[in-house]
Amino acid sequence: MPTKPRILTGDRPSGKLHLGHYVGSLANRVALQDRYECFFIIADLHVLTTKPTREDIAQIPQNIRDLVLDHLAVGIDPEKVTFYVQSAVKEIFQINLIFEMLVTVPRLARLPSIKDMARNANIDEEQLPFGLLGYPVLQAGDILMPRANLVPVGKDNEAHVEITREIARRFNYLYGEVFPEPEALVPDVGTLPGTDGQGKMSKSANNAIYLSDEAPTVAQKVRGMYTDPARIRADIPGKVEGNPVFAYHDAFNPNLEEVNDLKERYRTGRVGDVEVKKKLLAAIEAFLEPIRERRARYAATPTLVDEIIHTGNQRTRAVAQETVAMMEEAMGMGYFA
Amino acid sequence: MPTKPRILTGDRPSGKLHLGHYVGSLANRVALQDRYECFFIIADLHVLTTKPTREDIAQIPQNIRDLVLDHLAVGIDPEKVTFYVQSAVKEIFQINLIFEMLVTVPRLARLPSIKDMARNANIDEEQLPFGLLGYPVLQAGDILMPRANLVPVGKDNEAHVEITREIARRFNYLYGEVFPEPEALVPDVGTLPGTDGQGKMSKSANNAIYLSDEAPTVAQKVRGMYTDPARIRADIPGKVEGNPVFAYHDAFNPNLEEVNDLKERYRTGRVGDVEVKKKLLAAIEAFLEPIRERRARYAATPTLVDEIIHTGNQRTRAVAQETVAMMEEAMGMGYFA
Repeated sequence: MPTKPRILTGDRPSGKLHLGHYVGSLANRVALQDRYECFFIIADLHVLTTKPTREDIAQIPQNIRDLVLDHLAVGIDPEKVTFYVQSAVKEIFQINLIFEMLVTVPRLARLPSIKDMARNANIDEEQLPFGLLGYPVLQAGDILMPRANLVPVGKDNEAHVEITREIARRFNYLYGEVFPEPEALVPDVGTLPGTDGQGKMSKSANNAIYLSDEAPTVAQKVRGMYTDPARIRADIPGKVEGNPVFAYHDAFNPNLEEVNDLKERYRTGRVGDVEVKKKLLAAIEAFLEPIRERRARYAATPTLVDEIIHTGNQRTRAVAQETVAMMEEAMGMGYFA
Repeated sequence: MPTKPRILTGDRPSGKLHLGHYVGSLANRVALQDRYECFFIIADLHVLTTKPTREDIAQIPQNIRDLVLDHLAVGIDPEKVTFYVQSAVKEIFQINLIFEMLVTVPRLARLPSIKDMARNANIDEEQLPFGLLGYPVLQAGDILMPRANLVPVGKDNEAHVEITREIARRFNYLYGEVFPEPEALVPDVGTLPGTDGQGKMSKSANNAIYLSDEAPTVAQKVRGMYTDPARIRADIPGKVEGNPVFAYHDAFNPNLEEVNDLKERYRTGRVGDVEVKKKLLAAIEAFLEPIRERRARYAATPTLVDEIIHTGNQRTRAVAQETVAMMEEAMGMGYFA
């Protein structure tokens, strides 16, 4: 039995991570890795729910490697955390099918998250893939497969943890106590706006500063950042609230005195954008520099990331096989296996 | 590559088989086994779609053994036919999940068969398990897993073979040619009525003569059979049509002359029920006797049925692994496996 409570969290392998990911989840993960036994899923099967082409799938292996390297770079310790690729731990397929019996169609159909995902993928209701409606069931499988106790998730996935708890209860009630009822841990962090100030930082909006961006790229992106558009001269009082430059200062500049001084002068028209951005760039660079160093150290052994993934897959499969055995034992299945 | 076309057919492990099963499917299976490479699925996962209790599941292993022994007894040759237990060929879980992405919710929701199954299991629409809606997808997985060309099914499952063809086409279109488009083979046979004449022969209606019934049981069931209720004396003309006694004569009495003579005399009030039933019993016994002999021969080696199942499971897993490898290759998945 695990001595520490278990965490399951993770991401789709959809590309490199940016500062928004750091604020929204990575910082939290770094903090949690000492207190919990952590499984980090790289959820490639979830990519299938929105009808990928062969070309989309061809991106996945490199995205997986980038995702792991980004985690290592921000300070996730591969000795403490088990990374695994969802599709490589084949036990998930069996767990998923069993769980599909334990949740109703109307329960899933009422979830706003499914409708959002369909809309984002340009899929209308008549074309809704059965597998997309089953997305929360597969997620319940991900969470219960290592019998996780805690699930750090974004607000948009909180309802899926609730479904996971229902499935766990239903299984335990029908067949015997196998699963804990995991708790969602929704971190109390704001959303980092994009450099264009038009919404949250995201790859698709092309407004992101990546953890893997080199210094000149970061400098260019910070210089081009959106600020208060009403402030056409430095002596015009500006708005700090909703201004991405100050959101970034709050997130990445540890020098509170400097940040408060800049805000005060910005509000009263006594500082230029150039100075605000220069100090922001310095703060971001101070944040990114150790990340770049760690990245370089890990990347120096070209096979390392693949080894971490393979080791993690094996470690996770062992846990998954334990869970499947417990499920089969509880249900009275596994005959003739 | 297979030299003969492949068949996938099978049953849920829901108990012993009766004369109705023989007429509806077993006779056809015996005839097909020489011309095709046959996979016979024992579909225990389908039992899960209608919310079984632990007690329901506990019946399954014995039901599986009975099902195989019934097949052997009617002349299915385990050298020609591969029996396998659905849940033991774990590749089905992966195939199922991939296929769930390739069919829409409305397509499944419109199937009358799903509504029928829910009604039969006393499940109302609000409680419809997600896995029950996915039943035809799992069945598509069963059929395409050995890349079957032909699927002998009952009329009620014909629509599921159509969905299977759609899924095969969709996979082939998206990712490359892996699957044949299997054809349904709906046998042109009538339904055998139950001994009570009140509907088709079925376990739940308690109106069945089992292939494993001993001679005294059969004699008792034939003696008690429903005939023409208007015919209270042997000299009253009777109805042959819709009379189960004559339906059984047609199905099991190879002596056409005798059958026609009995029908003629029945219609004109010149034969008693006792004679009709006595000759029917003789015909059924002549049919069942070699079945009993074969059953006894197979049952003489107590481990034989289990060995047949284990060998079949292994043979099927090899084919299933081939299919999964073909799917992963076509999709570009299987990285880090």
